[in-house]
Amino acid sequence: MPHINLSNEYPGIRSLFVYRPETAAPLNALVQVLLHNPHPTLSAGEREMIAAYVSRLNTCHYCSHIHGAIARHQLGDDAALMEQVFQNPETADISNKMKALLKIAAKVQKGGKHVTEDDIAVARNEGATDVEIHDTVLIAAAFCMYNRYVDGLATWQPHDENLYKMGEQRAREGYLTPPFKVAESSLR
Amino acid sequence: MPHINLSNEYPGIRSLFVYRPETAAPLNALVQVLLHNPHPTLSAGEREMIAAYVSRLNTCHYCSHIHGAIARHQLGDDAALMEQVFQNPETADISNKMKALLKIAAKVQKGGKHVTEDDIAVARNEGATDVEIHDTVLIAAAFCMYNRYVDGLATWQPHDENLYKMGEQRAREGYLTPPFKVAESSLR
Repeated sequence: MPHINLSNEYPGIRSLFVYRPETAAPLNALVQVLLHNPHPTLSAGEREMIAAYVSRLNTCHYCSHIHGAIARHQLGDDAALMEQVFQNPETADISNKMKALLKIAAKVQKGGKHVTEDDIAVARNEGATDVEIHDTVLIAAAFCMYNRYVDGLATWQPHDENLYKMGEQRAREGYLTPPFKVAESSLR
Repeated sequence: MPHINLSNEYPGIRSLFVYRPETAAPLNALVQVLLHNPHPTLSAGEREMIAAYVSRLNTCHYCSHIHGAIARHQLGDDAALMEQVFQNPETADISNKMKALLKIAAKVQKGGKHVTEDDIAVARNEGATDVEIHDTVLIAAAFCMYNRYVDGLATWQPHDENLYKMGEQRAREGYLTPPFKVAESSLR
């Protein structure tokens, strides 16, 4: 049960967006720029992968599942690739550049000062641009916020895999349209 | 030296805002709502105090100093109160409600799941409202992002206390006006 009375039955961060629209607006605008809007070089799927991976490191059930689902839709992948990344990016079937960026993201998850010049040099050697490094750090940092927000208020997080099918809608429409409602009561 | 070429000499997060205006817009809009806009019950000084305290826990020099300076201006306090909070909120000369909210903020800094029902009950007993608990969690979570962003890219963070006088400007004007420029070269 959520720590505060949210007066709605949306899951995860959606319940907080409905509760406090004043903060929902910039929070949605940020994730739209970071993950959905066109990017010079990183695909939406690659950016969703970073978000899902950091959310998994933060053990945030809702965020890792929804962004994992969105990443799969964006990448045209059923389940294998994202699961490989969740297990260990180093052995996943992804580019060396993505491995280096995910390593930077994992350092940011621990704390900003964990990122070393060597981590940056490795990413550059694999072809990462400054904007890619910037956006990786900010996506990782932003999900350290979203994850803490969702878990710090103990929002309702469905454990029914089907509910994360809304990932398909998000993948298609981005973050600025209302979610379809998943009523908690209809699931019990 | 920053991990990427930011092509400007602004300090801390300002250098990142100039580098990437697309993400600067929602990041500034968020901090404006959380810390500066009118709030039903928490003063701007109290909200800045939460932000500065979390930044200190994350050992982010730039954010803890600038938001500490803004908090002092908002609270009409020279230096004592914020320093007391940095040392130990439990023994600081603040209300029991603020102590309870800062305890929740410290839990969020560790991770969202660290916040317990007991932490929430203590805050409620001291008169904290649902919106105050919500905003405390989100401010703490947001500064886990801002701090990681600033440190994860190794931005330039002046250690000259005078430079944090811009806290007075932020306290007065909020977060949506341009900063005055502090050129790195002029300080060396």
